[in-house]
Amino acid sequence: MSESLNVGMIGYAFMGAAHSHAWRTAPRFFDLPLAPRMTALAGRDPERVAAAAGKLGWDSSETDWRRLVERDDIDLIDICVPGNLHAEIAIAALEAGKHVLCEKPLANSVEEAEQMTAAAEAAKAKGVYAMCGFSYRRTPALSLAKQLVDSGALGPIRHVRAQYLQDWLTDENAPLTWRLDKTKSGSGSLGDIGAHIIDAAQWVAGSSITGVSAIMETFVKERPVGGDFVGLGGVGGADGPKGPVTVDDAAMFTARFAGTAENPGGAVGVFEATRFALGRKNAMRVELNGAKASLAFDFEDMNSLWFYDAADGPNSGFRKIQATEPEHPYTGNWWPVGHGLGYEHAFTHQVVDLVGAIANGEQPTPSFADALRVQRVLAAVEASAEDESRWTTV
Amino acid sequence: MSESLNVGMIGYAFMGAAHSHAWRTAPRFFDLPLAPRMTALAGRDPERVAAAAGKLGWDSSETDWRRLVERDDIDLIDICVPGNLHAEIAIAALEAGKHVLCEKPLANSVEEAEQMTAAAEAAKAKGVYAMCGFSYRRTPALSLAKQLVDSGALGPIRHVRAQYLQDWLTDENAPLTWRLDKTKSGSGSLGDIGAHIIDAAQWVAGSSITGVSAIMETFVKERPVGGDFVGLGGVGGADGPKGPVTVDDAAMFTARFAGTAENPGGAVGVFEATRFALGRKNAMRVELNGAKASLAFDFEDMNSLWFYDAADGPNSGFRKIQATEPEHPYTGNWWPVGHGLGYEHAFTHQVVDLVGAIANGEQPTPSFADALRVQRVLAAVEASAEDESRWTTV
Amino acid sequence: MSESLNVGMIGYAFMGAAHSHAWRTAPRFFDLPLAPRMTALAGRDPERVAAAAGKLGWDSSETDWRRLVERDDIDLIDICVPGNLHAEIAIAALEAGKHVLCEKPLANSVEEAEQMTAAAEAAKAKGVYAMCGFSYRRTPALSLAKQLVDSGALGPIRHVRAQYLQDWLTDENAPLTWRLDKTKSGSGSLGDIGAHIIDAAQWVAGSSITGVSAIMETFVKERPVGGDFVGLGGVGGADGPKGPVTVDDAAMFTARFAGTAENPGGAVGVFEATRFALGRKNAMRVELNGAKASLAFDFEDMNSLWFYDAADGPNSGFRKIQATEPEHPYTGNWWPVGHGLGYEHAFTHQVVDLVGAIANGEQPTPSFADALRVQRVLAAVEASAEDESRWTTV
Amino acid sequence: MSESLNVGMIGYAFMGAAHSHAWRTAPRFFDLPLAPRMTALAGRDPERVAAAAGKLGWDSSETDWRRLVERDDIDLIDICVPGNLHAEIAIAALEAGKHVLCEKPLANSVEEAEQMTAAAEAAKAKGVYAMCGFSYRRTPALSLAKQLVDSGALGPIRHVRAQYLQDWLTDENAPLTWRLDKTKSGSGSLGDIGAHIIDAAQWVAGSSITGVSAIMETFVKERPVGGDFVGLGGVGGADGPKGPVTVDDAAMFTARFAGTAENPGGAVGVFEATRFALGRKNAMRVELNGAKASLAFDFEDMNSLWFYDAADGPNSGFRKIQATEPEHPYTGNWWPVGHGLGYEHAFTHQVVDLVGAIANGEQPTPSFADALRVQRVLAAVEASAEDESRWTTV
Repeated sequence: MSESLNVGMIGYAFMGAAHSHAWRTAPRFFDLPLAPRMTALAGRDPERVAAAAGKLGWDSSETDWRRLVERDDIDLIDICVPGNLHAEIAIAALEAGKHVLCEKPLANSVEEAEQMTAAAEAAKAKGVYAMCGFSYRRTPALSLAKQLVDSGALGPIRHVRAQYLQDWLTDENAPLTWRLDKTKSGSGSLGDIGAHIIDAAQWVAGSSITGVSAIMETFVKERPVGGDFVGLGGVGGADGPKGPVTVDDAAMFTARFAGTAENPGGAVGVFEATRFALGRKNAMRVELNGAKASLAFDFEDMNSLWFYDAADGPNSGFRKIQATEPEHPYTGNWWPVGHGLGYEHAFTHQVVDLVGAIANGEQPTPSFADALRVQRVLAAVEASAEDESRWTTV
Repeated sequence: MSESLNVGMIGYAFMGAAHSHAWRTAPRFFDLPLAPRMTALAGRDPERVAAAAGKLGWDSSETDWRRLVERDDIDLIDICVPGNLHAEIAIAALEAGKHVLCEKPLANSVEEAEQMTAAAEAAKAKGVYAMCGFSYRRTPALSLAKQLVDSGALGPIRHVRAQYLQDWLTDENAPLTWRLDKTKSGSGSLGDIGAHIIDAAQWVAGSSITGVSAIMETFVKERPVGGDFVGLGGVGGADGPKGPVTVDDAAMFTARFAGTAENPGGAVGVFEATRFALGRKNAMRVELNGAKASLAFDFEDMNSLWFYDAADGPNSGFRKIQATEPEHPYTGNWWPVGHGLGYEHAFTHQVVDLVGAIANGEQPTPSFADALRVQRVLAAVEASAEDESRWTTV
Repeated sequence: MSESLNVGMIGYAFMGAAHSHAWRTAPRFFDLPLAPRMTALAGRDPERVAAAAGKLGWDSSETDWRRLVERDDIDLIDICVPGNLHAEIAIAALEAGKHVLCEKPLANSVEEAEQMTAAAEAAKAKGVYAMCGFSYRRTPALSLAKQLVDSGALGPIRHVRAQYLQDWLTDENAPLTWRLDKTKSGSGSLGDIGAHIIDAAQWVAGSSITGVSAIMETFVKERPVGGDFVGLGGVGGADGPKGPVTVDDAAMFTARFAGTAENPGGAVGVFEATRFALGRKNAMRVELNGAKASLAFDFEDMNSLWFYDAADGPNSGFRKIQATEPEHPYTGNWWPVGHGLGYEHAFTHQVVDLVGAIANGEQPTPSFADALRVQRVLAAVEASAEDESRWTTV
Repeated sequence: MSESLNVGMIGYAFMGAAHSHAWRTAPRFFDLPLAPRMTALAGRDPERVAAAAGKLGWDSSETDWRRLVERDDIDLIDICVPGNLHAEIAIAALEAGKHVLCEKPLANSVEEAEQMTAAAEAAKAKGVYAMCGFSYRRTPALSLAKQLVDSGALGPIRHVRAQYLQDWLTDENAPLTWRLDKTKSGSGSLGDIGAHIIDAAQWVAGSSITGVSAIMETFVKERPVGGDFVGLGGVGGADGPKGPVTVDDAAMFTARFAGTAENPGGAVGVFEATRFALGRKNAMRVELNGAKASLAFDFEDMNSLWFYDAADGPNSGFRKIQATEPEHPYTGNWWPVGHGLGYEHAFTHQVVDLVGAIANGEQPTPSFADALRVQRVLAAVEASAEDESRWTTV
């Protein structure tokens, strides 16, 4: 096989498991120009990180992320920890000449994101690359959406409609995890899931958000501390002590997108992110309405892309494209048509594209600069929500 | 049969056809306490109104709506003309002691709506009733949604999500009809279809909107004058003269709902009305997420209500209730289960409820006061959109 | 208006209500060359038939159907009674020079159906026409399916897949109505709902069934006599006396269709009719798979036709066509796009087409000969089921 | 980690890739009592098998499957080759004391399947186990269906409705692969995909098929030899030489299921398997209608199970259960709710259950005896189709 790419990963919770699977799986289904090696896993608790390394397939473990940055046998640092740690780690890694894959949102503030982007630009000049993990871009159906827009199939885009609806905080006794602590997570639904639809919308539409008007809400102000964790949320104790929720439960905003040569007026958008949409488990949805065609995606039916082409005339209708054809992005390396992929495949595709870009000396996408654009939107949403929903330019 | 209720209707276009069908059909499927008689139809052109009266089943025709108000043999005036004429007609009719059914939106301004509401209050004291034609309330599935909320099934409501998506103006050469002329229609998508989802959301949620932040957009600024009309839109001439579109093509806003004893925080809402959502033909959608259950309705699948009940436990899921059971609102008078109803049935049910209320000496709903509440939201949306999307109380 | 067509109808239950609505409504939405007049309604009980005539809008009533046949002021007899009475009435009416609209299935035996067809042929020579009420043909989405097949869009058809799934007999205590009595209904699910999918499949596919292999089943052998009737079924008494169910609860069969010049091999088919598919309320479904395209219809979503066109290439997918465009069958006379129609509209369209054919001196479809073809399939299904499912030619 | 279980796999095409992924992935997400080791891969071509071993992650390769059976360091033989080779390999492996996982259908004839089952029974007495790879049983939504039936939620089952619809042979120029050669594959759609729905139906319903009546069809009698293979099918040359298709393109049959104590009458069933259902990519569907509840599954929406519970009363409706809750089969070891799984996860779960059974000294399911029951149905279908569709007992 080809030259190896030695990876060190930091963090081994939900995202760590997904990234590990991706590093392990990508070379089995795709021909990679570099052979990823799962060299080391870092975490704070020696026993737990060693156990996780064994379970997830890493060759060794470290209890300080700085060790990964120092080690000569590490080529790439994969950051899977809460957002408050992203900037320090990513900048140190880039300065040490390590490629970086950093989970989203890029940072907990625009300032940090700017510093990270500056570090990434500096590293790029030396052939060291940074990428942000907006993994949904690599879900085949959403990637196909991007292809359709890029092909001009939609014509000028008038509407963007994006929602990320979950329900795991509906129970008032779900426990107070780090995701509800602003010092760790930066924000609540906005940064966690809102960031995904902001990135997806800007990327698929091929245009940036220029301004927003927002409201945000925290429905449940206090939650039980401790409790047993299950999935993203957990089962808390209704009777025990409670602590304050310091992030948003839901964020909603209207938006305008930059005009383009073809579409000088630009599109208008409506966004909503919440963890209180009871019954919606992972409804990450993006719909675009153009002058010639429309498309709609919902992650709860992740192998399909709905496409409406006005050229079909009176017998037009939203087509349920099963994005599993050999011609579709990534799917030719997997199973026969109609044999759907799952959530984690996007992470595998992320590894495929990242490794390919590094081998080719090209900037992988989304770059930190792309992620900074998302961060600026997050900041504008918060600013508008705090200022009577006034229109806030990005 | 029972005593008659003599109806005079003004206007005979799209809405006039729907209302005529309703007056004709209601007594055939429902036992009405008063027998509606289609006494007279009013319109300006003598030949066309006479032809329409014959076609639609009215006993006579008039060329001036004032004649209907004057005629002693008319008990109820049904107003199916553009919004700029509503106030004058409705007030005159109520003052003349005629019951009134007025199409929505109630008026083209809050001031008119207030005057109409005052007239309705005065008339009510004399046993004369006014009702506004937010007909979607009588679509069985949406009416079932209201029942479920009223029963407490949803618990405190956190989210309201309402869209009315159409696409008949996507073509830039669709002609400049009265619906695009602010002096006649008052507004564009906002008042035409946005009003429906505002009314539906407030009614189903059982709570009023207290404030909004909005943006509005007119994508196509000029359109061909003249042209042949088809459906709501038409086929214009791309090369002929054009005139200015003076209304909005799309309106989007976030909202907050009044708290209630059970739900002191109130719900947050996101609304969108557009005629440019290519591929969406009549997607009038309302979704509510409560603490205990959720429900979702889409008029494009109008005989179904989706209902999610968290009490179903791990095997919960959105249920597709076919709202055609004998126990469901209105449907017991129609066909066996699963034999769906259509758009016009809501108008027939509107007649049923209106006639029943009049016979019982009760206020039919939605009252003009209810419709005024919608009008105030429309005004707040416009005000916010003109003031940098600033939060605007209703 | 135009010359009148005086109608006499026999029976006023479920079908009678649907037909009355159609006669009343058709001229209001369509320009008919003859003006239907609802002249007389016949039933056995004088009081009940008189009340029904008033309610449904008939000018007079009779207590013997023979009187309708004798009356000079009746031009057309509309037969809405159980199948055991069809032959006698239809033949008498045709011989008396009356046009006939007869509910489906045409008769309770092939012999009767043959006699009726012979009478219809004889009458046709005198300008008197007979039609069988397979009303689903006039549901716009299914009619659009027929247009697509006729246009050659599907290419050679390989598969026909048809189901009619209801659930109103699932309850073992649903009462023993006439529909469960073989002497009145001829058969159970087979003739009642199976006949609809047989007709629809043959009509849409443009090819006749040539042979079948079948099984039939009666799950519940005895049911309560008496009881209160609700919808198609009713609420019986679990503890009262019971009587034998003499018809099938479910019928399932495989089939082959005649080859055509374009498709010499012919299609294969699978059919299922049942009233025990719990949760399926009125799932009348037809799917065709051709070499070039496929289509699928489900009455529970009656305003949509799903269409898959292989010519769309890798981005093909089943399109949800909302069959409400002005270009679609019948819909241009109703509401704007996306404003769905209901169950009863097919009956209105049936009247439109029947009146048009009579006025033009043309044979309306489905003719009695078409309905006889269905009857022969029903007989072959029963014969096969009684003979170890052996292949039985039609 | 725990004691190892050394696996030798034979074949490395579509199924080989899926099985390799499963062996590799299972221990990363599940705690296994034995540690699978991917010891050796066997294939005929030395270079290709060595390359495949490297790509798929096997430690070594062999060019004769007999070597795997002989090697002492192999504990389990995983058979992923065409059906004509199953019997010889499986029997040799079992006799050599190796556990066996054999792809479905178990064999190409009942005779072979009986011999294999006898070998499995003999081996079981020595603590050596055999399992057949009806992997769909381990798709969480279908496994949940089984749980619901076993819990009694459905009550007596009246209807089974199963389809496996694909379309990859619709093109008449798709090439003549081994799957179309009866000597290799045993049958066409019947054994390849029909076997899956027969197994799934019997397993979920908890009852065996007792008799069938069938038709089978080969629409395209000759196909191009050679050609490039893509997915399951391929792209052939329309102008080159052709060879005969010796298997069925489609198989359809009605069936009856054995009665049970609770349901003495037994269910009736309708089955259809085809590769010519244009537009249906992998529609593996099973629906059961019971007296108390119904359920429906479609692999094209593989993470959902539709469940209708009559106990929900008038507001019942098919619930779309997203089978991704921690309480659902297998899913707690993967991602948060709503983050769907893909096709290959069923193979991973198969490994989990197989390893667990071996470690516990329990018979894994489906056993060869279970698979033999499927084989007998396949044989009865073929016998009926060749005998005028006559009812054929299994």
